[in-house]
Amino acid sequence: MRLRNVPHAKRIIARHPDKIVSLAGDEDIVLNDRFPEEKPLEMEIGTGKGRFIHTLAKANPSCNHLAVEKFDNVIIRALERVVEDPLLNLLLVRADAENLKNFLRPRSVKRIYLNFSDPWPKKRHEKRRLTHPDFLAMYKEILKPGGRIEFKTDNRKFFEYSLKTMNRAGMRFLFLSLDLHSEERLDNIMTEFEERYGKDGPIYIITASFEEDHNEENVQGTA
Amino acid sequence: MRLRNVPHAKRIIARHPDKIVSLAGDEDIVLNDRFPEEKPLEMEIGTGKGRFIHTLAKANPSCNHLAVEKFDNVIIRALERVVEDPLLNLLLVRADAENLKNFLRPRSVKRIYLNFSDPWPKKRHEKRRLTHPDFLAMYKEILKPGGRIEFKTDNRKFFEYSLKTMNRAGMRFLFLSLDLHSEERLDNIMTEFEERYGKDGPIYIITASFEEDHNEENVQGTA
Repeated sequence: MRLRNVPHAKRIIARHPDKIVSLAGDEDIVLNDRFPEEKPLEMEIGTGKGRFIHTLAKANPSCNHLAVEKFDNVIIRALERVVEDPLLNLLLVRADAENLKNFLRPRSVKRIYLNFSDPWPKKRHEKRRLTHPDFLAMYKEILKPGGRIEFKTDNRKFFEYSLKTMNRAGMRFLFLSLDLHSEERLDNIMTEFEERYGKDGPIYIITASFEEDHNEENVQGTA
Repeated sequence: MRLRNVPHAKRIIARHPDKIVSLAGDEDIVLNDRFPEEKPLEMEIGTGKGRFIHTLAKANPSCNHLAVEKFDNVIIRALERVVEDPLLNLLLVRADAENLKNFLRPRSVKRIYLNFSDPWPKKRHEKRRLTHPDFLAMYKEILKPGGRIEFKTDNRKFFEYSLKTMNRAGMRFLFLSLDLHSEERLDNIMTEFEERYGKDGPIYIITASFEEDHNEENVQGTA
């Protein structure tokens, strides 16, 4: 089933209420409750065409997954994938990231993935960067104790910026690489973007948490 | 004057007590007091042949400078430079970095420079890395309120390690670049090492402090 060239994305979205929710911002919806089974919740913000989160959800049936994307015409590409290969533990969400906390129970998210988010390089767009201090403050509210943010980018300036904002927000760095593809990590799920552009330069990654984490299993790269 | 091929470095060192101090670790000496004038104190640990600190001391007459180096046969190269071009605000110190706090007044150092320190890549040598948590704890004792550490390296793994140890030691990141030579910084003083190897790959740099710093003048690279 190909949805690609359908002009009325909104109509397509409305046709699949079990797979995708579109949120203007003021709805009275709790996303945590929209899965058939209650499980720990992971989410990707800026999910694009959805390959990463679909692969993750498939590999990780013990968690529920939210795939958040702002644009109708992008998220229908992810919807296409989900319609072809439905997963009960994956829900697509068409929403602005800044509204997310209206739809999530506080301290309910285990992991937030930010993959190749728009770097918004101009200073005047700084507030739109998904690692801006205001976004980090929101993530802090929705993350569980010990919950983590995993941030991947190929944009050096954006990574430098994010190391600083995460450090200053009091986050604890757990795993960090300035060249992810040189690491022996078998658990890396590539996004479409990463596969296409990952050869042009290094991919930067950081996993960080707001809490002290005494389970050091994921503290790699310290040797 | 060339000291290079002199076999008895210790004897050479003893000949210049106004320019260099050699410390075994248990001497009763306060390095802060060994300058003709009392001024804010900066120091480089692992000073090598001393080009960086000599250039800095010359450009920065309003501060006193300590140049710390562990090895006799390396520091006499720096001594050679200082004998040729003496500076009243620069003192060479032959000492193990781990003994430094025995010789400094607590909370008396304005800035600590770590330039291309030995990365000690093997896990069993981790304690020798100058950004190991034990060293950071010592720097915290000797740094003034608002004092800073500036750490430069070309070793990616060592930089990743140091970002984590500095973050976990509660340090606040002020300036950070994953490619120093691409930045428009006019104030970078190159070390011998940096000039020779800086073209082979990126130079990483971080400036960080243990305190909140409301003077944001040096917070570059956030745009």
